[in-house]
Amino acid sequence: MIDQEEVVVVRLGHRPGRDDRMTTHVALTARALGADRVVLPDNATDAVETARDVTDRFGGPFTVESTDALQGFLRGWEGAIVHLTMYGEPVEQRIEAIRKRHRSGPLAVVVGAEKVPFEVYDLATFNVGVTNQPHSEVAALAVTLDRLFEGAELDRPWVNADKRVVPQAAGKRVVDESD
Amino acid sequence: MIDQEEVVVVRLGHRPGRDDRMTTHVALTARALGADRVVLPDNATDAVETARDVTDRFGGPFTVESTDALQGFLRGWEGAIVHLTMYGEPVEQRIEAIRKRHRSGPLAVVVGAEKVPFEVYDLATFNVGVTNQPHSEVAALAVTLDRLFEGAELDRPWVNADKRVVPQAAGKRVVDESD
Repeated sequence: MIDQEEVVVVRLGHRPGRDDRMTTHVALTARALGADRVVLPDNATDAVETARDVTDRFGGPFTVESTDALQGFLRGWEGAIVHLTMYGEPVEQRIEAIRKRHRSGPLAVVVGAEKVPFEVYDLATFNVGVTNQPHSEVAALAVTLDRLFEGAELDRPWVNADKRVVPQAAGKRVVDESD
Repeated sequence: MIDQEEVVVVRLGHRPGRDDRMTTHVALTARALGADRVVLPDNATDAVETARDVTDRFGGPFTVESTDALQGFLRGWEGAIVHLTMYGEPVEQRIEAIRKRHRSGPLAVVVGAEKVPFEVYDLATFNVGVTNQPHSEVAALAVTLDRLFEGAELDRPWVNADKRVVPQAAGKRVVDESD
């Protein structure tokens, strides 16, 4: 990506069943849009499996981890923390400061499920909102990563991919590169 | 928004239960990120209700519709159609052409659920991908709208809002404007 420091996406909170697809989409969006790693709650077993499977087939580098101590992970994180929340400051006003912090160190981008503990607002270096409207943590993550990387993430090269999609004006073309 | 022509987001396909939250997030993302209207499958009753409720509380203008004839809606659509698909051409290469079409007419942005009928690829003026990686239709929609409107959607004014979030560096502040 644009620089060498890690960007890790952290998914806080997960209700098995109800949140399976949202958490999976958070993980896959993190991978597709330039993050190096995603850390999921350890009860998000479906999402962990799907994100690893997609990485196996479509390439990396991308790491999928899970833990039962996500707040502990954030407490011990030695870089800036960007918490995406509809209550936060406008992302478009803070993105330059975020990018600047990222130039000199790793970045954790945190997206919550339902209710985020107040400690996370305090731990965060930046509480930012992609609008102050209720919508989707997946949408907020996507816009934030696209702005953070300034579009460079969109043609990220993939290594160890078995499958590669060849862009088409209409229809589908997938090349098998596993041979 | 940037111009007067309508942008409508169309959600194609919906499996009740399984897709409830994804379809809801599509609708809320459409509203938050500058679309004028969303058209949902008529079996997406939860998503219709939630999107209308959010519009009642947080403001509009935003219209939520549903129909049992979404492909018919697209066949009769008299503007450009942007179909978001991981098999499509890079959005960053086509966004200027899309924006140009939007200057002179309405735009439908189509996001599918599982499998999209081949007819939709043919009906589409543009089949575009936000990367050619598998991730999330919500993420793809968010990046596409943000690029289409060039960020102007992020501080869209809202009318008839009962609730307004006041951006905070930490914590939450919501003002009740219903009085």
